[in-house]
Amino acid sequence: MDEVRSARLDPALKAVAAKLFDDVRQATFDGVGVTRASYGDGENRAMAIVEAFAREEGLACERDAVDNRIIRVVGEPAGAPVLIGSHLDSVPQGGNFDGLAGVVAGLLVLLHYSRHGGVPPRPIHVLALRGEESAWYGKAYMGSLSLTGQLSAADLDLKQRETGRTMREDMQALGIDTARIEAGERLMDPAQVAAYLELHIEQGPTMVARKWAVAPVTGIRGNVRHNRILCKGETGHSGAVPRWLRKDAVLAVAELMTRLDEHWRVLQQMGMDMVMTCGMVSTDPKSHAVSVIPGEVAFSFEVRSQDNDVLERFHKLMLEECDRIGRSRGVEFQFDRRLYTAPATMDPVWVAKLSSACEAQAIDTEPMPSGAGHDAAVFANAGVSCGMVFVRNDRGSHNPHEAMDLQDFFSGVEVLHRAIVAA
Amino acid sequence: MDEVRSARLDPALKAVAAKLFDDVRQATFDGVGVTRASYGDGENRAMAIVEAFAREEGLACERDAVDNRIIRVVGEPAGAPVLIGSHLDSVPQGGNFDGLAGVVAGLLVLLHYSRHGGVPPRPIHVLALRGEESAWYGKAYMGSLSLTGQLSAADLDLKQRETGRTMREDMQALGIDTARIEAGERLMDPAQVAAYLELHIEQGPTMVARKWAVAPVTGIRGNVRHNRILCKGETGHSGAVPRWLRKDAVLAVAELMTRLDEHWRVLQQMGMDMVMTCGMVSTDPKSHAVSVIPGEVAFSFEVRSQDNDVLERFHKLMLEECDRIGRSRGVEFQFDRRLYTAPATMDPVWVAKLSSACEAQAIDTEPMPSGAGHDAAVFANAGVSCGMVFVRNDRGSHNPHEAMDLQDFFSGVEVLHRAIVAA
Repeated sequence: MDEVRSARLDPALKAVAAKLFDDVRQATFDGVGVTRASYGDGENRAMAIVEAFAREEGLACERDAVDNRIIRVVGEPAGAPVLIGSHLDSVPQGGNFDGLAGVVAGLLVLLHYSRHGGVPPRPIHVLALRGEESAWYGKAYMGSLSLTGQLSAADLDLKQRETGRTMREDMQALGIDTARIEAGERLMDPAQVAAYLELHIEQGPTMVARKWAVAPVTGIRGNVRHNRILCKGETGHSGAVPRWLRKDAVLAVAELMTRLDEHWRVLQQMGMDMVMTCGMVSTDPKSHAVSVIPGEVAFSFEVRSQDNDVLERFHKLMLEECDRIGRSRGVEFQFDRRLYTAPATMDPVWVAKLSSACEAQAIDTEPMPSGAGHDAAVFANAGVSCGMVFVRNDRGSHNPHEAMDLQDFFSGVEVLHRAIVAA
Repeated sequence: MDEVRSARLDPALKAVAAKLFDDVRQATFDGVGVTRASYGDGENRAMAIVEAFAREEGLACERDAVDNRIIRVVGEPAGAPVLIGSHLDSVPQGGNFDGLAGVVAGLLVLLHYSRHGGVPPRPIHVLALRGEESAWYGKAYMGSLSLTGQLSAADLDLKQRETGRTMREDMQALGIDTARIEAGERLMDPAQVAAYLELHIEQGPTMVARKWAVAPVTGIRGNVRHNRILCKGETGHSGAVPRWLRKDAVLAVAELMTRLDEHWRVLQQMGMDMVMTCGMVSTDPKSHAVSVIPGEVAFSFEVRSQDNDVLERFHKLMLEECDRIGRSRGVEFQFDRRLYTAPATMDPVWVAKLSSACEAQAIDTEPMPSGAGHDAAVFANAGVSCGMVFVRNDRGSHNPHEAMDLQDFFSGVEVLHRAIVAA
């Protein structure tokens, strides 16, 4: 086979992908979407399905120090491997392809060789990661951060939103030696990795709007988060306290959000890259009532940008607005630990290879930034050469309605494979 | 005894009141405040303590058709009684005096006669009501509404916020014949009641600010409420959906609240009587996350005013703002049943009697409106001649920090008694 032909994958592999997607969906369906808790039940099921599949196909499957799976073709050449990775967890009531698609992509690349009794021309390992979603412990990228020695004792103390168990407890239940994580040990040596490549569904609407089936990714937005900011006012009878004596926590948080929303509008207009989200807000369910002036509101805050300066300055602006509203409304804002994820740049060499691969397959596309975070950002900032490819996906992600076309996915896998085997 | 002397109560009754307050507080303390669920556990305990106390004192205690208690001196004169009433339920983590003070006030008036082997010069009945607080079923004044034939089948279908049981089920568990309520039967004949008088702590800060220990009440603010308005947007990945494609339910509700807050400020400036409260707000705990654009926010809405026009117009203004924000932000507002409580006027005859009684006791005060609703409003609108007296109370109500001075309370009871026995 000539080089171009060998980069094409057997179309029969599409059905393999479809079955894998279906098997994992069925095993983790929650009645609305899929729920695959990090280091928990749904993620365990997805891991088990992937592992069993790999073994049936005659692939080698190992567990690394933090219970991720590393899958490879038996008898592959020696040398530093190219990793094709993504994660198997999901948000609650999430979509099936977010994360899973990248792992299935890697498996198809391996099957391209193993099913014909061959081995890839260079070592290619599939890395099926745990713990990418922040929805469970309020901390993202736990799998890649622990591999790169960046998950702290404070992170391990975070509690799972539903069970109340700590991340440390849940990891230990899986046999993970959390002392090594806590010690900041590098559980994966970046020097022993040729590259980390990740295929992921696009989680925004850009590619659908621009009719791009596949797109190389240039970089990944970082973020600054607070999982829980508490606005404390004063409860009181809703009919009897006059306006000037109220310390209404709901109206204070509403003003904060409305002001930040307006700042966002203006800053974007002025050319800055950012998005802002308050994903969770709640009065205190133990004491709130229709006829009680709300004395307490808890809410989350997140700002994302490719530009570190924008992250830092918008966070500071938020703190200043809280201070200002606190003084004018007689409320107090209490902040939990600030969480920070640095923006990351993909290796220009891989952006170029992936772009060439798209061109070779006559895919109309342009390199684009990733609005969402990915483990690729963690590996890139730890010194690993990284590349990412997006697959078009309608109706966003982190919801049960995500829709990826299997043909688009297959084109993405071919682009990934072509970029790896290109000279 | 001359008339003025006989209106004075035995100071020894102060200790009786203090013990009753303490007994009920201890029996219904929840670790933070008191919790006396309407037609539920805490209210039952308070009822049992009041009933046992009345029997020990040799008073007659009966249950009416909706399981309220009617307490009177044995051997009293015939005729239509003056009712001294209030309620025994509380909001969750509420204060001890809201409601209970009015019942204890009535009991002290009866003891003034019974403890000396006498009977009052006219029939005086204490009415210890159930179910005044809206916090439990989202509906207020259940005790007085059912007595006046105004509690509907739809009301009886409302569910208790913690147990999920319907009001009907909880009433039936107490032996109440809900078929009579549902039929709209008048379970108390207004023509057989000389008056309904209620002593209540002030639930706002006005009397503390103006140094009034006791004040006659002129009327009661009505309200329009929605227990649950749902703002439906669209969930999505918080990093990947650009601003212009978002349908963020939190920012939509924040804008609504901020706009209504501004309207309120202006309308009050223009002389209108109103207060507005959003006591409960929450994203969906089953699917919200820091990194998910919030697709759904549930919130309550309440406006109160002494002026019915203001109630109706502000409610309409709220609906119009929802419509406007819905169109500009791509979200939809869904409304539950609108709940309405009419404003009420106290009988000017009783306002005058209570004012005279204050003057006779050299209490510096002025008649004032009630910002909070009371069962007195229901009875007044059902044609009963009503009067109310407020007792000064620091730190509001519907919270565990309410603080009523026992001497202020005792002065209020004396005012009430003096007004009843005055010619």
